[in-house]
Amino acid sequence: MADQLLPREKVFRDPVHNYIHVRHQVILDLINTPEFQRLRRIKQLGVASYVFQGAEHSRFTHSLGVYEITRQICDNFQSNFPSQAPGDGLWDDRERLVALCAALLHDIGHGPYSHTFEHIFGTDHEAITRRILTSPETEVYKILARVEPDFPAKVASVIDHTYPNPQVVQMISSQIDADRMDYLLRDAYNTGTNYGLFDLTRVLRVMRPYAGGIAFDANGMHAVEDYIVSRFQMYQQVYFHPVSRGMEVILTHLLERAKFLYEDQQFEDNFIPQLLIPFFEHTFDLQDYLRLDDGVLNTYFITWLNYPDTILRDLAARFLNRKPLKSVGFMPATRTLLPHLRELVDQAGFNPEYYTAENDSFDLPYDQYDPASANPKTQIEIIQPDKTLEELSSLSPIVAAISGRATGDTRFYFPKAMLGKPTDDLFTPIYQEFQHYILNGALILENPMEDDNDD
Amino acid sequence: MADQLLPREKVFRDPVHNYIHVRHQVILDLINTPEFQRLRRIKQLGVASYVFQGAEHSRFTHSLGVYEITRQICDNFQSNFPSQAPGDGLWDDRERLVALCAALLHDIGHGPYSHTFEHIFGTDHEAITRRILTSPETEVYKILARVEPDFPAKVASVIDHTYPNPQVVQMISSQIDADRMDYLLRDAYNTGTNYGLFDLTRVLRVMRPYAGGIAFDANGMHAVEDYIVSRFQMYQQVYFHPVSRGMEVILTHLLERAKFLYEDQQFEDNFIPQLLIPFFEHTFDLQDYLRLDDGVLNTYFITWLNYPDTILRDLAARFLNRKPLKSVGFMPATRTLLPHLRELVDQAGFNPEYYTAENDSFDLPYDQYDPASANPKTQIEIIQPDKTLEELSSLSPIVAAISGRATGDTRFYFPKAMLGKPTDDLFTPIYQEFQHYILNGALILENPMEDDNDD
Amino acid sequence: MADQLLPREKVFRDPVHNYIHVRHQVILDLINTPEFQRLRRIKQLGVASYVFQGAEHSRFTHSLGVYEITRQICDNFQSNFPSQAPGDGLWDDRERLVALCAALLHDIGHGPYSHTFEHIFGTDHEAITRRILTSPETEVYKILARVEPDFPAKVASVIDHTYPNPQVVQMISSQIDADRMDYLLRDAYNTGTNYGLFDLTRVLRVMRPYAGGIAFDANGMHAVEDYIVSRFQMYQQVYFHPVSRGMEVILTHLLERAKFLYEDQQFEDNFIPQLLIPFFEHTFDLQDYLRLDDGVLNTYFITWLNYPDTILRDLAARFLNRKPLKSVGFMPATRTLLPHLRELVDQAGFNPEYYTAENDSFDLPYDQYDPASANPKTQIEIIQPDKTLEELSSLSPIVAAISGRATGDTRFYFPKAMLGKPTDDLFTPIYQEFQHYILNGALILENPMEDDNDD
Amino acid sequence: MADQLLPREKVFRDPVHNYIHVRHQVILDLINTPEFQRLRRIKQLGVASYVFQGAEHSRFTHSLGVYEITRQICDNFQSNFPSQAPGDGLWDDRERLVALCAALLHDIGHGPYSHTFEHIFGTDHEAITRRILTSPETEVYKILARVEPDFPAKVASVIDHTYPNPQVVQMISSQIDADRMDYLLRDAYNTGTNYGLFDLTRVLRVMRPYAGGIAFDANGMHAVEDYIVSRFQMYQQVYFHPVSRGMEVILTHLLERAKFLYEDQQFEDNFIPQLLIPFFEHTFDLQDYLRLDDGVLNTYFITWLNYPDTILRDLAARFLNRKPLKSVGFMPATRTLLPHLRELVDQAGFNPEYYTAENDSFDLPYDQYDPASANPKTQIEIIQPDKTLEELSSLSPIVAAISGRATGDTRFYFPKAMLGKPTDDLFTPIYQEFQHYILNGALILENPMEDDNDD
Repeated sequence: MADQLLPREKVFRDPVHNYIHVRHQVILDLINTPEFQRLRRIKQLGVASYVFQGAEHSRFTHSLGVYEITRQICDNFQSNFPSQAPGDGLWDDRERLVALCAALLHDIGHGPYSHTFEHIFGTDHEAITRRILTSPETEVYKILARVEPDFPAKVASVIDHTYPNPQVVQMISSQIDADRMDYLLRDAYNTGTNYGLFDLTRVLRVMRPYAGGIAFDANGMHAVEDYIVSRFQMYQQVYFHPVSRGMEVILTHLLERAKFLYEDQQFEDNFIPQLLIPFFEHTFDLQDYLRLDDGVLNTYFITWLNYPDTILRDLAARFLNRKPLKSVGFMPATRTLLPHLRELVDQAGFNPEYYTAENDSFDLPYDQYDPASANPKTQIEIIQPDKTLEELSSLSPIVAAISGRATGDTRFYFPKAMLGKPTDDLFTPIYQEFQHYILNGALILENPMEDDNDD
Repeated sequence: MADQLLPREKVFRDPVHNYIHVRHQVILDLINTPEFQRLRRIKQLGVASYVFQGAEHSRFTHSLGVYEITRQICDNFQSNFPSQAPGDGLWDDRERLVALCAALLHDIGHGPYSHTFEHIFGTDHEAITRRILTSPETEVYKILARVEPDFPAKVASVIDHTYPNPQVVQMISSQIDADRMDYLLRDAYNTGTNYGLFDLTRVLRVMRPYAGGIAFDANGMHAVEDYIVSRFQMYQQVYFHPVSRGMEVILTHLLERAKFLYEDQQFEDNFIPQLLIPFFEHTFDLQDYLRLDDGVLNTYFITWLNYPDTILRDLAARFLNRKPLKSVGFMPATRTLLPHLRELVDQAGFNPEYYTAENDSFDLPYDQYDPASANPKTQIEIIQPDKTLEELSSLSPIVAAISGRATGDTRFYFPKAMLGKPTDDLFTPIYQEFQHYILNGALILENPMEDDNDD
Repeated sequence: MADQLLPREKVFRDPVHNYIHVRHQVILDLINTPEFQRLRRIKQLGVASYVFQGAEHSRFTHSLGVYEITRQICDNFQSNFPSQAPGDGLWDDRERLVALCAALLHDIGHGPYSHTFEHIFGTDHEAITRRILTSPETEVYKILARVEPDFPAKVASVIDHTYPNPQVVQMISSQIDADRMDYLLRDAYNTGTNYGLFDLTRVLRVMRPYAGGIAFDANGMHAVEDYIVSRFQMYQQVYFHPVSRGMEVILTHLLERAKFLYEDQQFEDNFIPQLLIPFFEHTFDLQDYLRLDDGVLNTYFITWLNYPDTILRDLAARFLNRKPLKSVGFMPATRTLLPHLRELVDQAGFNPEYYTAENDSFDLPYDQYDPASANPKTQIEIIQPDKTLEELSSLSPIVAAISGRATGDTRFYFPKAMLGKPTDDLFTPIYQEFQHYILNGALILENPMEDDNDD
Repeated sequence: MADQLLPREKVFRDPVHNYIHVRHQVILDLINTPEFQRLRRIKQLGVASYVFQGAEHSRFTHSLGVYEITRQICDNFQSNFPSQAPGDGLWDDRERLVALCAALLHDIGHGPYSHTFEHIFGTDHEAITRRILTSPETEVYKILARVEPDFPAKVASVIDHTYPNPQVVQMISSQIDADRMDYLLRDAYNTGTNYGLFDLTRVLRVMRPYAGGIAFDANGMHAVEDYIVSRFQMYQQVYFHPVSRGMEVILTHLLERAKFLYEDQQFEDNFIPQLLIPFFEHTFDLQDYLRLDDGVLNTYFITWLNYPDTILRDLAARFLNRKPLKSVGFMPATRTLLPHLRELVDQAGFNPEYYTAENDSFDLPYDQYDPASANPKTQIEIIQPDKTLEELSSLSPIVAAISGRATGDTRFYFPKAMLGKPTDDLFTPIYQEFQHYILNGALILENPMEDDNDD
């Protein structure tokens, strides 16, 4: 019963992988749970679809994709590197089901606009993933427990990185795992950018299980290098896009304002977001969380378009109607200008608490293993013909160039009005002073020029 | 002011057309209206994403795509067939802006789950489109009216097919128009099927303006033929998919049940769908309509998961968690079985009013112009080298084969339980009798076999 | 030894199938024979690359592609439909190697500009294929014979359609076989047209072995239909392109002229095409044939650019430098004009024997099995859920529309000069009379108009 | 007359750019010259098609592609950056025709297996390009001279980098020019690798003319970076592939042997390669050169398969039948082993002059301008919003990592027999000693292991 196979393989059409192949009853049943179906209603890239309008895909399709890549890895390992004896460092196909379930469910704890929501309400999608997997109240738990009583905990431990088999853990979570490979390809496909494209078939072909986890055959080194560069470029070009972050800032302030109004008992009855109350009051349970999705939050925002509070109403409209805050980059040296700029924003009639923000986005594209690090990374190992392992950045000058260096930027957000052209507007002198501090899209201490910042 | 150009072309990344190019301030302003941004929150294919999970794209991206194809047609016409004198049947580029606006806005009146919603609540997305374009209260109207006072009405008349220039009308609405071309390509791209693919570049290249509208150069006849076949196949394979229709049936019954409960004054306060009340009461105005989107409806469905009424609660759960009704095809002859089958469903414990349905889906893939028809079609004309026109199906045996014939099917929907395998279940005899009437996915009058119907 | 596997799978990068996977030593050895490597030097589409310049791919890559599709069919059959008992109509994987070899070698008898060459020299690529497979002198034979002594004959019998297992025969040769599927996709890829695209993955997925050969699951009927339409369109648009045929006509006349000069003992020593002598003299053996390729023929043509005979020299230059003859369509009724048109061509200074031609191209896109036919086709069978078979055209109106009807056209070829514009040229009146018989790219009996025929 | 336009745009289908658009009569006439049509018979990647079998495309299709990219750049410049006054650094569209002709013809001097042939026979494709453009005997010259008498020299000066307008020169020849962009995309398309893919549309969109040539808008910096990385990876993975180089070594030795036999007067009459005599004798003129193509050389090789000289015959067979020499990498330190290894090859029965070789392949992926360099590069400039220019590698850590560093390797080639497995073969001890010096695909001074080198 544990890993009962379907009488006939079932497939799901997928634009990225062509087909998602399902052979296990358990997988099909997990897909059909309310907890998993709910992922259809949560966008994978959140506010990024305001910038790349094609990016409307959900965590549901991504999760199926991660499952499918994991399945392909297992198939490859089973065909080419099957374990002959315990401890030989090869692939033990009895690990397949736990790997597939972990792949499918790795994101199940995500909520709407995940990172922003967590930031405001103190939820933690990883903890919630664990609870969904291991709480007897969920459908997911019930299906997993049918395999064997401790199977839910096993799957959770893969996602937690505490599962003993490092091959299974690294499939789902490492610097080159099924999760990242699917989201790069899928985000590239849906945004219409091609930075995220890399040769998945070749990367999968050169994967090798070994006692320490998963390594890559030397003759596929360039395919792995290409993946790292793709990931780097997607962060620079898509995930850290300044306009997305301008929308994220608005969302943050909007939820903060709602929370403030609720805590201040100002919320009028008709406008109270019923499903958010447990979060305002920090009393939420798992079922409260599972009721949320992008549409639920947006529905409250739509309601608030008629709310008396100007700030709540305005921020809701800005969010729904895509009116991002504008931004400039700043450096530690120019950060000193921010208090004065906030003052100017205030003088121009905007509450700086809700209409300005500092926002930074940094990513470590790749790093070697560093035991001293707070969060040591599993480095990417390249297998030489004589079976010795070499760490990727020691072989690739391109990877070395971006290895161990967090890249990203720090930006100051403010209302677009501050970039107004000179008119006879009352605020023109304020705008002009403000713009005086901007050159080439960044703050400067002197020497102003007109910025042609473009969203 | 009328058709003020942007200082610099603005582009939107698009996975289907690579870039959407915008040069007019009016177009950019229209995109930024609340009415248009709202289309981001309405899926282009509605419930079809339950079958083709990649089909998560919105009417927003489709509308930009229709705009872009129209822009390319205008560019081509202006480069190659510019009018030299009034009435010469060539392209007058002063028509460009009205064409672009109509293309962009042709779907602006759509609401959530459009066809189902209209069916229940008697709304009409075409009438609403007209109101959005021509009501002084909308942002869209204000922007259009800035071009010239009667510009909103002009744009509306293109969408209504009453605009005097047939080239402009046919660009947006004919048997081979920018709307259809975009949705075929986009739906194919996102579903991951390739039935919808055809050679857009070549079709655009062989388009020719003439006094009666738009025709196609003879040497591109096969590209047009391929488009017709693609369209035919997308209807057969995607738009009419029996499982999507099984979800649509559930949605219909769910909204009907909610309406019934409301009209019957049974709705408990906490569960009343505030934003739907104007629709239950037939008092809705344009603003009521514009507040709706897929997420708003889904939010009510989520609320109803805890509603006391069993039918409402169960149908909401089936819809959110993708539990489609199953179906079999039937013909006029086997339709006589339906009352008895409904009875069996009833005996098995399901209210047939809410758990069975007849559903038909028919489409006319292509037709010649027929003045006697209730809805005569603009036929596709092929231009011969001597400038005479020939109707497409007279040249293409493939098109002739599917011309003038509505294709589709009629299906009976019922709960999956009715297909239960024989067990010691109380209802087994009922199930068995039910299944007795099914062979090869269709109803039969006798001679039963086990069906392996698969969703 | 028979089907010895490689220690590790070997792959060939392929733009159409991504990778060609080879596991058998025999396959690798066959690829490395001189007979097979020679296919690199023979273009798959011959003169069509003069019209679709990307179509430069060889019979070598196509042959690998046919092998790969066959391999995928075998894998699918072995996974999903393995024979349990002799005669159960399922797939016996012991047939795999013979199928793979036949797939790889099905075109090995092709020579340069195959159809034209055969026409002039009376060679027969099918007979030569058989000889390459079964003559002890070839490397191919030696490798096949290592499997078992009668293996060469077995492989040949698959290609001859006399092999007893109809599944194997139909994989390689039927109305929907690995050969046709690869060439449609590959020709589409390289020409840059997309008429030839269809959903290979889905077609392979719905293939089913049965006692009578290979059938297709009903739920994949539309994928099969799409393939038939793609094939139809590739013939209409690519394979029958009038300009390619205009180059083929020149090639035919060029080889005829060379043969005439040789037979007439006019060939000067320096210009004699040594490698063609056995063909001029009908004394060629297999080794003579295997020395030929596109480059050998072209090398003689290059030499002939300096040959004294005006016709040989001019036709060689027209072929190398792409100066196709022009053409018009004709019907039985207008065929009567041809003698007079040839006369006009003669009057204009061109020997009509070498500068005019009739050329027809017809294909039967699909047909039902017809035992009365000279060449009865294996019809495409669709399996219903109750396991009954239905012939494809009885289910698909599109296929029915093109079924059993040879489509194509008959064209008259002549020098481009005949389409000359009116000038004070001596021949102007002749040109004008000639053009008088052409309307809309076809011959007419009266009522002339200027043709803007375009290549 | 100079730049007469066609009555109607003419297009060529292209798999990479979809269509090649031609509007000028001159361009069409140049394409139809014998000198240009000859490029159809010369493979773009030469022997690389022995490794990436899809790479069968010719210099003809590549040349059309370079033309098309140049045309798109001109269109973009003319639409968005038209010169308003002489010397304003913007685009003067009167430069279009010279740019298009130079793009189309930049490779016209290439011969068969270009680099190898030049190496043996001392030809120089750049000098020959110049002669084709400027010798009154060629068709190309005649067509160019129709534009204006000094137009041939102008076009030649663009290719020579001496043309005064740096924008025109850099379009055709710089570190990011139409030539490189086309070959990366086309080679990637045809090999089926995707390392060469980059976002051409975006790169073209961010190109800007300025007084010093062509620069790139800052917001497109990542697209340019991606192009540099793509180019780097194509060199590493495709152009420098060790097996291609193993075929090139054979070709070199084969031509050297033929030259030796000719010079030594050993060539028997029947086997003398007539068209090569002028090259053996260093007396060739332009017409001799223009008669050569891949097929001509291969035809001689086919003839030589029956030649008495063992080395010539064997090398011809190895080349035609794809039997590459094998190789190992070496470093300056291990180079000292080569004399001894050659001795072992000799002992094993192979003439080391013809059966071993050193081969290095190095490329400088990108470099800054260095006036001290022998061949200073035009560096890639990024335009900041305030119009200042920044050199690319100062902005991109990835580009900096590969900038100014020639990358590649040095390999020693030898017969595959040297890697023979231990048998009772007479030569086994020699093979074993030889293999003793190889580890992980490279020479080592000690510490041997079995190499699983794979082609």
